[in-house]
Amino acid sequence: MNDDAHDAGPGRDGPRNPSRRRFLGGAAGAAGALAAGGVGFGVARATESEAAAAPAATHRVPFYGRHQAGIATPAQDRLAFAAFDITAVDVQDVQVMLGTWAAAASQLTKGLQVGAVEVSPDRPPIDTGEALGLSPANLTITVGFGPSLFDDRFGLAAKRPAALAPIPALPGDTLDPQRSGGDLCVQACADDPQVAFHAIRNFARLARGTAVMRWSQLGFGRTSSTSRSQDTPRNLMGFKDGTNNIKDEDTDELDRFVWVGRETDQPWMRGGSYVVARRIRMLIESWDTDFLSDQEKVFGRYKDSGAPLTGKHEFDTVRLAAARAGKPVIDANAHIRLAAPESNGGKKLLRRGYSYTDGIDPDTGLLDAGLFFIAFQQDPRTQFVPIQRRLGGSDLLNEYIRHTGSGVWACPPGVSAAGDWWGKSLFG
Amino acid sequence: MNDDAHDAGPGRDGPRNPSRRRFLGGAAGAAGALAAGGVGFGVARATESEAAAAPAATHRVPFYGRHQAGIATPAQDRLAFAAFDITAVDVQDVQVMLGTWAAAASQLTKGLQVGAVEVSPDRPPIDTGEALGLSPANLTITVGFGPSLFDDRFGLAAKRPAALAPIPALPGDTLDPQRSGGDLCVQACADDPQVAFHAIRNFARLARGTAVMRWSQLGFGRTSSTSRSQDTPRNLMGFKDGTNNIKDEDTDELDRFVWVGRETDQPWMRGGSYVVARRIRMLIESWDTDFLSDQEKVFGRYKDSGAPLTGKHEFDTVRLAAARAGKPVIDANAHIRLAAPESNGGKKLLRRGYSYTDGIDPDTGLLDAGLFFIAFQQDPRTQFVPIQRRLGGSDLLNEYIRHTGSGVWACPPGVSAAGDWWGKSLFG
Repeated sequence: MNDDAHDAGPGRDGPRNPSRRRFLGGAAGAAGALAAGGVGFGVARATESEAAAAPAATHRVPFYGRHQAGIATPAQDRLAFAAFDITAVDVQDVQVMLGTWAAAASQLTKGLQVGAVEVSPDRPPIDTGEALGLSPANLTITVGFGPSLFDDRFGLAAKRPAALAPIPALPGDTLDPQRSGGDLCVQACADDPQVAFHAIRNFARLARGTAVMRWSQLGFGRTSSTSRSQDTPRNLMGFKDGTNNIKDEDTDELDRFVWVGRETDQPWMRGGSYVVARRIRMLIESWDTDFLSDQEKVFGRYKDSGAPLTGKHEFDTVRLAAARAGKPVIDANAHIRLAAPESNGGKKLLRRGYSYTDGIDPDTGLLDAGLFFIAFQQDPRTQFVPIQRRLGGSDLLNEYIRHTGSGVWACPPGVSAAGDWWGKSLFG
Repeated sequence: MNDDAHDAGPGRDGPRNPSRRRFLGGAAGAAGALAAGGVGFGVARATESEAAAAPAATHRVPFYGRHQAGIATPAQDRLAFAAFDITAVDVQDVQVMLGTWAAAASQLTKGLQVGAVEVSPDRPPIDTGEALGLSPANLTITVGFGPSLFDDRFGLAAKRPAALAPIPALPGDTLDPQRSGGDLCVQACADDPQVAFHAIRNFARLARGTAVMRWSQLGFGRTSSTSRSQDTPRNLMGFKDGTNNIKDEDTDELDRFVWVGRETDQPWMRGGSYVVARRIRMLIESWDTDFLSDQEKVFGRYKDSGAPLTGKHEFDTVRLAAARAGKPVIDANAHIRLAAPESNGGKKLLRRGYSYTDGIDPDTGLLDAGLFFIAFQQDPRTQFVPIQRRLGGSDLLNEYIRHTGSGVWACPPGVSAAGDWWGKSLFG
């Protein structure tokens, strides 16, 4: 299970606040955790009948495990993503919230409510109710800790992994602080947008008094495949991008590029991963007036088939060295070339982004649409940052995109069982 | 087919601009219409091979027909909606755009591209490409004409149906002009959000030089069932609303309440319908703190089962007269009572709304989420307006909602065949 992620051991919990410790470390399970969570909802016991009403075990991704789900899990169709800032001053409030979230996540990923709807007529319902009766829809909930969580507020400064450095300024950045950063991130992915939104909304509600939502982003269509069972989808530029993404079947590559191992300076991160999110707006009206041949030159792929310009079929090898009449077939600054592992010291990312549209930009009258880029990796300092520095400097695509939001978070290993929560050994 | 919608007859086309008329009225079909559309895309002939590559005829809703699809069609899962304003000064440009849109819609609803991707390397692709390879996903595209289209710009003032009156100010309105109105509306519904978005985006592109998008709205989950084969979904308040909606099997009710018939003062609208859209923001943080019993009082239904407070099961009759201890079981101002046909002279609406969320409201830090209400009807003056006046005045729900956007449009009858377009007899 989560063995190498919990080497701090139960003794690290310490004797402060034993009643809370009993809840947080105990065997009370999901419902008990919610009941003890102290978030103002009173009696929150899940009833036996509710447990009996659990939907069938199809379309369910296990919540407990060595790694967090939602990373190597085959990419679901829809995304709801939110960044939160902690408002509490007591680190134990943060722990209680994370314990409450973990208990809620174990329910939600089974297609259950956070608590029974009908607790009492004289109280607000615990769950907001809009997912009642829906399938679990392969819901995964993935939580990460931002660099700002490790400032001096909670005594965590010495626990910050070196790999969790703020993303430096990169060429071409036009970042909006209101769409960037956050002490925590929550990525909810599901095949039903109402299920994904429901998870984020109820997390925000359970956080009340401890954390507030800083920003959020809905993604309406996955732009990556993370399993050999999935087709490569098209992004809003109409291209297949991410053909050579790491797949969940590539366990060697996951260990090399995605999962944190013994190389980390912070044992609580073993089995975890780092996520970088970038809100990349596409200037699609401008893109749409570009000639087909130029669009294909920008990506280095054929639009229709998705094949590299050096091949016929989508999965044909990208031959970066191929030349015709003395010129490279794939342009020196084509996206496919600059993003390729061959151009980046062999480094790869697990991409898991989603297309978004947020309506019309009131300043310009143009569509605010693009890619909410999400990538998981072992160390952003040697993976995302140098790759993006190269792309941001030279990528032909830069004429048509703007990075408008950014964040990096450390996603701890998976929650092992009821009573565990994200980063328990971090706080121990 | 569309017989009673075209009583103006072909002779009404008039002799102005015969070459355009040949296109607009001719048998050139979808591809020819696009080619002649004059919207700057040059060679736009759909190739034979593209036609042969048409996806299988599953998940397809016929585009041509007596009524527009997307009204009585069983509600698809996702919505992309946009309002457009005409910028052209020549009414024939509007006709050409509508003809081009109709040709495009006939392609898109079959799962085809607007034009071949690979027209020429030295031109922009005609279709933006992001739906290539996706299923038609039951795409429907529904077009309507707003009251402002009938001002003095295009000589249409005498053609405005009396029923197409601007929605008057209603109790509780807090409308944002940037989310209201528009000369045209386009409702794209599909079971895949990328397919719905693709339709709106390509319509915006085909409109260039003739119309600009005024506002748009994505809906991520249907909130109504419009077929007996569908479950009643839950809105973001967690309630089943719209249990007693008109269903596509209720042909008598469709004729009484939805389709425009011989009562209209404008024959070009026979077989059409009027759509009212309202962006209804829910104050969900406030709602979520309300007690269960009060939430149920507000709606007049049980949250869990969806049954009326006078019954046990969702579809039990709503007994508005039932009393207990001298008080009505369903509150005098419960939503279910005020919206009921019994409270509104027997009038009903065909509701077809979607849940939306547009992230965080920067002014308040609260979620901007709610219901994008869409209702089709025979005459808004006697259906939506009086019903909403009653609701806006007294509905217990008003404490938790704000109407932030509004529009009304006349949706002409269906497009009959290639060469026809929306409202052809209006412009004739």
